[in-house]
Amino acid sequence: MAQVYITRVERFNAAHKLWVNEWSEDKNFEFFGKCANKNWHGHNYRLEVTVKGSPDPVTGFVIDAKKLGSLMKREVTDKLDHRNLNLDVDFIKDVQPTSENLTILIWQQLEPKIENCKLYSVKLYETENIFAEYRGE
Amino acid sequence: MAQVYITRVERFNAAHKLWVNEWSEDKNFEFFGKCANKNWHGHNYRLEVTVKGSPDPVTGFVIDAKKLGSLMKREVTDKLDHRNLNLDVDFIKDVQPTSENLTILIWQQLEPKIENCKLYSVKLYETENIFAEYRGE
Amino acid sequence: MAQVYITRVERFNAAHKLWVNEWSEDKNFEFFGKCANKNWHGHNYRLEVTVKGSPDPVTGFVIDAKKLGSLMKREVTDKLDHRNLNLDVDFIKDVQPTSENLTILIWQQLEPKIENCKLYSVKLYETENIFAEYRGE
Amino acid sequence: MAQVYITRVERFNAAHKLWVNEWSEDKNFEFFGKCANKNWHGHNYRLEVTVKGSPDPVTGFVIDAKKLGSLMKREVTDKLDHRNLNLDVDFIKDVQPTSENLTILIWQQLEPKIENCKLYSVKLYETENIFAEYRGE
Amino acid sequence: MAQVYITRVERFNAAHKLWVNEWSEDKNFEFFGKCANKNWHGHNYRLEVTVKGSPDPVTGFVIDAKKLGSLMKREVTDKLDHRNLNLDVDFIKDVQPTSENLTILIWQQLEPKIENCKLYSVKLYETENIFAEYRGE
Amino acid sequence: MAQVYITRVERFNAAHKLWVNEWSEDKNFEFFGKCANKNWHGHNYRLEVTVKGSPDPVTGFVIDAKKLGSLMKREVTDKLDHRNLNLDVDFIKDVQPTSENLTILIWQQLEPKIENCKLYSVKLYETENIFAEYRGE
Repeated sequence: MAQVYITRVERFNAAHKLWVNEWSEDKNFEFFGKCANKNWHGHNYRLEVTVKGSPDPVTGFVIDAKKLGSLMKREVTDKLDHRNLNLDVDFIKDVQPTSENLTILIWQQLEPKIENCKLYSVKLYETENIFAEYRGE
Repeated sequence: MAQVYITRVERFNAAHKLWVNEWSEDKNFEFFGKCANKNWHGHNYRLEVTVKGSPDPVTGFVIDAKKLGSLMKREVTDKLDHRNLNLDVDFIKDVQPTSENLTILIWQQLEPKIENCKLYSVKLYETENIFAEYRGE
Repeated sequence: MAQVYITRVERFNAAHKLWVNEWSEDKNFEFFGKCANKNWHGHNYRLEVTVKGSPDPVTGFVIDAKKLGSLMKREVTDKLDHRNLNLDVDFIKDVQPTSENLTILIWQQLEPKIENCKLYSVKLYETENIFAEYRGE
Repeated sequence: MAQVYITRVERFNAAHKLWVNEWSEDKNFEFFGKCANKNWHGHNYRLEVTVKGSPDPVTGFVIDAKKLGSLMKREVTDKLDHRNLNLDVDFIKDVQPTSENLTILIWQQLEPKIENCKLYSVKLYETENIFAEYRGE
Repeated sequence: MAQVYITRVERFNAAHKLWVNEWSEDKNFEFFGKCANKNWHGHNYRLEVTVKGSPDPVTGFVIDAKKLGSLMKREVTDKLDHRNLNLDVDFIKDVQPTSENLTILIWQQLEPKIENCKLYSVKLYETENIFAEYRGE
Repeated sequence: MAQVYITRVERFNAAHKLWVNEWSEDKNFEFFGKCANKNWHGHNYRLEVTVKGSPDPVTGFVIDAKKLGSLMKREVTDKLDHRNLNLDVDFIKDVQPTSENLTILIWQQLEPKIENCKLYSVKLYETENIFAEYRGE
């Protein structure tokens, strides 16, 4: 059976900062630069989730993209949109909210809920110039 | 010999609907939602075709991108542009015109015509938020 | 009071064709080319609506962009999305569904519903390369 | 002398919230929705500044776009990038940091510093779907 | 009669440099920076041409966008694409090929050829961050 | 340890032509078409560099994206920006400056300088419609 990748995009706007509590203020600013601003900064994040599977012979769907979008909203973007990624999110605790870590955490939210096909990739654009991707490796 | 991937983008604008003849009208609307509108809807599709091969030591080309574009137009987008994907296309028969199925059918159109390098991927954007990819797996 | 322009973008995907009933088939194809395909074609439309007014001294809003988006959805894009622009839309009757005409008709739908500021522009992208704008002139 | 408009784009990433101190918490959430999240949210802002003038007969420049970019950085985006728009910016005090108000405040920062041509427009994209513009009216 | 603006986009890729013959090499580099590189540099230019007029009551067209595109290609982009803007173009002589000057020269090429509606704007993107516009003022 | 891909984008604007010295002028034009224009043409190139590695348990970084950007500027884009790719670049000698070859050469520039993670991909957009990618295969 042919394997096809299907991707759905959702967006969220959030605040965060990069900061290691165990480090001095000076070390935080030296390492993270302006990303360590104590009063936060923020981004328009773009989230691309890709699943892989065989198109159903009758419907032609690997997955219903509308349902994938609803799942992404319910499990991920409704929890992140217009929130503070360091303070407000139940599945981001005791971990630095870098794009790298966010892709892994988002994968863990979505993977158990994907049915009849496999989660292949979680890609997160922090800006149009920086993005991270996790493929479950 | 180094292997390089080269991608060419073409576009087409087409109408389609998602509909299973064996299903009742109610079941079609329940499953496909507004995509089942009887009078059709449509999209600006973006098609990305990627081939893989070694750059020629003299010309530096894996493939002449202009020739790849001409091939994509002749075999695919001239047949799909400003057409109805359910009714008008010789290579889409008895199959649901979802993006998933379209990537497989477009691969079958192009693969026998690619010379001196290998077709690697057919990627089709239905909107900026939903896209499918087939890699011949 | 300072005047500021605020713009909200919504999208819809629709089918249409360009066809003059009073003309012969040959004349229609000669004039409209592939846009006259009898079985329709379609587009991902991008709609930009701009209003002009003074920011409220307390809230800083010319208009609540969320409410402007809801208005655009209720009066316009819910009626156009996944529809056939020649057949399915109550406010498009006996008029060619070109982007030019659509901007005028969308203006007429929205203008009476805009409160406390003025509708300034309706801009409609048919593709990334062709767009029309109406400013009520 | 021919008048030409020249536009330069810069970007900044910032946190903010929309909140009226004189209002109850309930009223703030009712009016501003999730934009009133106490722990902030944020955006990747895109700033377009347009000046108008005659191209110099020798250099062909209305303004040196590099110098316009430096001015925008020094007077505006260096002060806003990776900052909290409610707390961190000297020229945003006692005013709601909506996109509408930001365009007026940015105009006031830039206008006295533009030489040999006229500031025509300050346009600010909060997301790809919402943007404000101020033209000094 | 309602007035509608319709815009068509074409693209071209060209080389140029900014250089004043009457100036010393040092002064050229001081003023134009890396844009004065003697061996040229280049851009993917995006050209937006807007005309203004009333939609025809039968066809719904202000102008046939395909014909506007053909006119832009014949009079402008076929002459600029894959060319050197300082050396190769008949209508760019004895003038600095800045984006500002190019918009005026392109206007002069197109304006006499536009029929039944009026040329409103010529907008040229040199990069996604710098663009010029001429409106015949 | 989870493996994450992180990508950084930089841009440069350059001139080039495609030309084989050993071929006649006619053969060059026949093969390369307008890309063989003797007076050069140019592009706005978009360069995407992807590295792969484990996020640091404390900082959450696979690599500091700012440092990756600085490395890309120092080793690659500062040498290519506003240059002639056939004449001006120390690491492009005796090789056709096609996008295919450029991705390999850029890989060779960057690969020895990437520390603590692995270079995964060098992707180069010549236009929005043509791009090449090298993954070290």
